[in-house]
Amino acid sequence: MTDAIEGQMPAYPIVDIHTHVYPDSYLVLLRSRTTVPYIYDPPDGSPARLIILSSDDNPSIPKEKRGRPVDSTYSDISLKLSFMRKHNITTSVISLANPWLDFLPAQDASHWAERINNDLESICAAQYAKAKASRSSSNTTSSGADAGTGQTLPLNEYYSLFAFGALPLSAPDTNVIVNEISRLASLKFIRGVIMGTSGLGNGLDDPALDPVWGGLERTQTLLFLHPHYGLPNDAFGGAETVERYGHVLPLALGFPLETTIAVTRMYLAGVFDRFPKLAILLAHSGGALPFLAGRIESCVAHERKFLANGGNVAGPKKSVWDVLNQNIYLDAVIYGDVGLKAAVHGAGSGDRVLFGTDHPFFPPLDGKDGQWLSVVTNRKAIDGAFGADSDAAKAILGGNAVRILNLGS
Amino acid sequence: MTDAIEGQMPAYPIVDIHTHVYPDSYLVLLRSRTTVPYIYDPPDGSPARLIILSSDDNPSIPKEKRGRPVDSTYSDISLKLSFMRKHNITTSVISLANPWLDFLPAQDASHWAERINNDLESICAAQYAKAKASRSSSNTTSSGADAGTGQTLPLNEYYSLFAFGALPLSAPDTNVIVNEISRLASLKFIRGVIMGTSGLGNGLDDPALDPVWGGLERTQTLLFLHPHYGLPNDAFGGAETVERYGHVLPLALGFPLETTIAVTRMYLAGVFDRFPKLAILLAHSGGALPFLAGRIESCVAHERKFLANGGNVAGPKKSVWDVLNQNIYLDAVIYGDVGLKAAVHGAGSGDRVLFGTDHPFFPPLDGKDGQWLSVVTNRKAIDGAFGADSDAAKAILGGNAVRILNLGS
Repeated sequence: MTDAIEGQMPAYPIVDIHTHVYPDSYLVLLRSRTTVPYIYDPPDGSPARLIILSSDDNPSIPKEKRGRPVDSTYSDISLKLSFMRKHNITTSVISLANPWLDFLPAQDASHWAERINNDLESICAAQYAKAKASRSSSNTTSSGADAGTGQTLPLNEYYSLFAFGALPLSAPDTNVIVNEISRLASLKFIRGVIMGTSGLGNGLDDPALDPVWGGLERTQTLLFLHPHYGLPNDAFGGAETVERYGHVLPLALGFPLETTIAVTRMYLAGVFDRFPKLAILLAHSGGALPFLAGRIESCVAHERKFLANGGNVAGPKKSVWDVLNQNIYLDAVIYGDVGLKAAVHGAGSGDRVLFGTDHPFFPPLDGKDGQWLSVVTNRKAIDGAFGADSDAAKAILGGNAVRILNLGS
Repeated sequence: MTDAIEGQMPAYPIVDIHTHVYPDSYLVLLRSRTTVPYIYDPPDGSPARLIILSSDDNPSIPKEKRGRPVDSTYSDISLKLSFMRKHNITTSVISLANPWLDFLPAQDASHWAERINNDLESICAAQYAKAKASRSSSNTTSSGADAGTGQTLPLNEYYSLFAFGALPLSAPDTNVIVNEISRLASLKFIRGVIMGTSGLGNGLDDPALDPVWGGLERTQTLLFLHPHYGLPNDAFGGAETVERYGHVLPLALGFPLETTIAVTRMYLAGVFDRFPKLAILLAHSGGALPFLAGRIESCVAHERKFLANGGNVAGPKKSVWDVLNQNIYLDAVIYGDVGLKAAVHGAGSGDRVLFGTDHPFFPPLDGKDGQWLSVVTNRKAIDGAFGADSDAAKAILGGNAVRILNLGS
């Protein structure tokens, strides 16, 4: 079911909505820094290191071994396209990888957001132009007529790119953020914005974010909510314990738990009551939200502090299930059919779950040039849960993204 | 489907495996303390307060309002039986509520463990004797012949109790713990042990716990793993944020996330490789483990630090799915069919999922004397997912517990 021949154009769109890039301008920015996040170029000429997680910035490890090597998969778009071809992905919605622009001094935020978002738009526009030129100079049509023939298509043909923009969250004034949201909505290839869980620095239940939620709602901009900060080391038993298991605890648990906490705080603060049309795509199938939604709902129903139970704190009005079914979309980056089925069940329908890869992260360790284990695992989960080429699988693999993000036009 | 008439004996066993007590001796112990966990008796005679979570011990709240009132549901067994009767529960496997004996000075651990475990055994034995006397003095039989007649049975009849013991984890020597495990295995009504996530103080991946795992494995004692410590306030954005939403963040998220982290650390440390017959019942359907298992598996497969990937740290050998299907049981305290179905799917089969109530926690806030919302929600999830009175529902409601915990004898 996942034995698709590499480079064979699928008969239906396969859209990767969770795929990151560091445009060149962002790498320049990271190279200018010496604290997380930063890029370190060892003076001995060994490969540059990217240190973006505080757990990576371990002083007991020599700098030239901290973090991970910055290979060209982070910024070279031809490698993104080649990855798409390898996994039969027709369309990618690229987003700046964490930690986005969270760390910028206030006065720099607006400048860098505009520069990086324009870079993203240009990358998508260039690919659009290239594909168009390639189509008009060949005998193939743009309607996907090659689908299923098994013909290997030339790289860059039909492979389209869209992007989620980044926001200048550290700007001195939320107007700056809202203006960037409006500007992004006018760009041809931008289809939403990506954001971490820190917001303006105080989490996503911060009332100061209301203008931002308002701006997203008004422009019907999808928010891709993505973790970066994980959990404090103490949650895992301290730095030594975290270090013992490499990246497993921060990435396998810290990331999804951070997302779960962030969106629950939004829910408890009534964000979805005040902004009923806010649309959020949660990374990693919502962290653990679909699984824990019932417990959240029950704890809210038993919390004396909330108005509904005689207390004096507003508390959420909408049920968490309504939020899952009305405001939230989930990616399908969950690496197994247990989680995938629960995500679809929690979202109320497979129409709210969208395929993604997390490229360029989780590359195969075997050094071979085949399809990536991480991608195949997610693809297998979809095919296994719903049947390869079933309508439900096709919707998750691409149909939903085309509809929700308006990728057909 | 959950409209069962209160007090009507069901036609099949309904076993509550997640139901807590504080025996009188434990209340004496808590009253002797002034730091968490403790019981505070206000000098003005207002109701005593139980402060067991550090988030409850908020210095900005007057002591007489901290925590929750200690009502008699915590220790009065006749109220436990009346709760069982109200929810048509035939059998309860009671356990000491958190934080168990984790906080005891080393020299006191063994004494209190023995005293409290003997209390638990006595409570169960007394109920057994009462039910037996009641049966032999009446015309009804013990075979459940009344099932389905709608007759209201006298309180204490057929309602049986078993218990999970507590361990003297702070004892100066693990031999003391292992000896208590062996002693508990010889007691008539003890069916396992309950434990928090702290272990000997350093978490459950601590190699010093190996003799304990060995003792549990050798005596085929089920370990009921239960959260207590939650996550550091920082994980939620600080104490003020936690406080804003009452108990919701620590209970709805902190508890299950703590369990997920604890069992993942055990897994990563190879505990299930070294003790392949260790059997663990995870509270709250495993926290978020069933949902995140795929991500854990994927992160392990991509971790360069582990031997299997060319690193120098052992790493787990068994897959996380094998652990879920061979070592782990899950309770059904998950408050919704999305989580319940994922728990059953993750456990590999409904044969490893067991009904529970979390009594006396999450009582209804409406002050009415009906069935509890928290219990009805969990019951509805089971009936909704599998059909009321279906074989699958019956197994989760009681059949599995009878088989796994040997409650028939």
